[in-house]
Amino acid sequence: MTPAPDVDSLVAGARDGDARSVARLISLVEDASPLLREAMAALAPYGGRATVVGLTGAPGVGKSTTTNALVGAYRGRDKRVGVLAVDPSSPFSGGALLGDRVRMQDHALDRDVYIRSMASRGHLGGLAWSTPQALRVLDAASCDVVLVETVGVGQSEVEVARTADTTVVLLAPGMGDAIQAAKAGILEVGDVYVVNKADRDGADNAVRELRHMLTLGERRAPGEWRPPIVKTVASRGEGLDELVDALDKHRGWLEETGTLHERRLHRAADEVESIALTALRERVGDLRSRGGEHGLDELAADVVAGRTDPYAAADRLLARLTGR
Amino acid sequence: MTPAPDVDSLVAGARDGDARSVARLISLVEDASPLLREAMAALAPYGGRATVVGLTGAPGVGKSTTTNALVGAYRGRDKRVGVLAVDPSSPFSGGALLGDRVRMQDHALDRDVYIRSMASRGHLGGLAWSTPQALRVLDAASCDVVLVETVGVGQSEVEVARTADTTVVLLAPGMGDAIQAAKAGILEVGDVYVVNKADRDGADNAVRELRHMLTLGERRAPGEWRPPIVKTVASRGEGLDELVDALDKHRGWLEETGTLHERRLHRAADEVESIALTALRERVGDLRSRGGEHGLDELAADVVAGRTDPYAAADRLLARLTGR
Repeated sequence: MTPAPDVDSLVAGARDGDARSVARLISLVEDASPLLREAMAALAPYGGRATVVGLTGAPGVGKSTTTNALVGAYRGRDKRVGVLAVDPSSPFSGGALLGDRVRMQDHALDRDVYIRSMASRGHLGGLAWSTPQALRVLDAASCDVVLVETVGVGQSEVEVARTADTTVVLLAPGMGDAIQAAKAGILEVGDVYVVNKADRDGADNAVRELRHMLTLGERRAPGEWRPPIVKTVASRGEGLDELVDALDKHRGWLEETGTLHERRLHRAADEVESIALTALRERVGDLRSRGGEHGLDELAADVVAGRTDPYAAADRLLARLTGR
Repeated sequence: MTPAPDVDSLVAGARDGDARSVARLISLVEDASPLLREAMAALAPYGGRATVVGLTGAPGVGKSTTTNALVGAYRGRDKRVGVLAVDPSSPFSGGALLGDRVRMQDHALDRDVYIRSMASRGHLGGLAWSTPQALRVLDAASCDVVLVETVGVGQSEVEVARTADTTVVLLAPGMGDAIQAAKAGILEVGDVYVVNKADRDGADNAVRELRHMLTLGERRAPGEWRPPIVKTVASRGEGLDELVDALDKHRGWLEETGTLHERRLHRAADEVESIALTALRERVGDLRSRGGEHGLDELAADVVAGRTDPYAAADRLLARLTGR
């Protein structure tokens, strides 16, 4: 058995860039460990420095390759980089982790790159909860940039993208992608668009189509951000400098306009609200399992017998819950 | 403008079998009216008498026709019948209502049949909330049996079926239905199975296949209910007496074993819990919109600034919410 970790020394280790401490802290998040509260309290003063970039897009557009190439581009600018690959659809992280290790082997020996897959096992609120907490770990570990790459598809992907400061939406030519993207609702979430595999036929068409769709929905006020479209061939490292430039520019815009602070406030409010609601749900669950004359069962019996109605019963439940 | 209804006289009217009062009470449910609390309180003493039968199954199996024929069969036994057709997928009830009126015209002039479509418009908890409340109205209106027919498909259908005392799962030959049913998880929820359109090729095959699948999953203790399979041709009224017999038998079993009370307790607990959680969520929402120094925004600002962590912030939020 692994002895219970000492949270303070893990946090100190993570701040020193010790990969093992970072790994154990993220495992606390993944496992919804009872030590998580303590860890988050200890990490709180060390956050807010890293830029969080979310990468999203349909399978086959080259998300992993682009993430890998983007790590290289940031390293070329001497940035410390964290990668969080989250799979909302899988409760297991082992397989994905192994895959990442293989595909990310370019950076395996680089002390200034930290790569981690994360699943939602055991976590009550799922990845919407655990992603921001894992980000706090990587932030405290002095990463300049954290790339959040979602493995799954669909709505949950968009949700995870929302934990980012800047969201990159990836497409590839010849997949009817702009339309796919419109359907998936990701045309609304992108701050920067990437048409990857730009050496393929139809790349310019994809850019045109995408620009058209972005302009269609456009009712931007002056000073608002206009999402750029960057062409890349991630497998050959082409276009990556342009992508990093676009990301830096967006970060600059976020800061100048106060949007960065605004987005982070909104996200923090979401997170606090979600933790509070989960705690309340647990308290209701406790009342339910307690049964008997002090629990929900008694109230349900009153409703079934017609002695009360469900609204009045809910009021009594809330009174017990909140001491009012 | 319609004047605000007097809840007590609506309830009195419903108990007298006045269709207009029943309709207005169910509209209160559908619209999540502020009068709903009062209505549910007034209805509370008059519930628990009706047997609630849920009908579920894939599109094309003849759900509406079977419901219609079942109304006829119950009327032949001099029972007062309510029909609640719920469409979890649609926020509108108008269209479905019209459709029902047409297809249910056999019973249009029968004072002892009440037919109503219901959508989920405006209702916070959706149909999982509104269905039991509409059932309370029909129950108080002295229906002996209420048939709940779901129009949509998928998980929500199974959920609505759970509000019933007895759940009927419908299939039809030649649709690969047993396998479909297995996938949809409805092999676990059926108390009675109907193979409708039993005059078609493959009906006996469908029954055999279904019996096989039901036996596969079977680990029933002695005294447990074994779901019967009834063959019907609902469009010609064939097999309906057998179906009513099977439903009566199931109701008898529910009562003898105490399962009826148990199921209703469980459902009432679900309902009370759901109302309480919705109220809590609204209180959190109030704190959020209040903003400023007394709301969630201040807590979020503390989290972003690293002055606190999200767990501690959630504790403070809960303390404000619950007065603890």
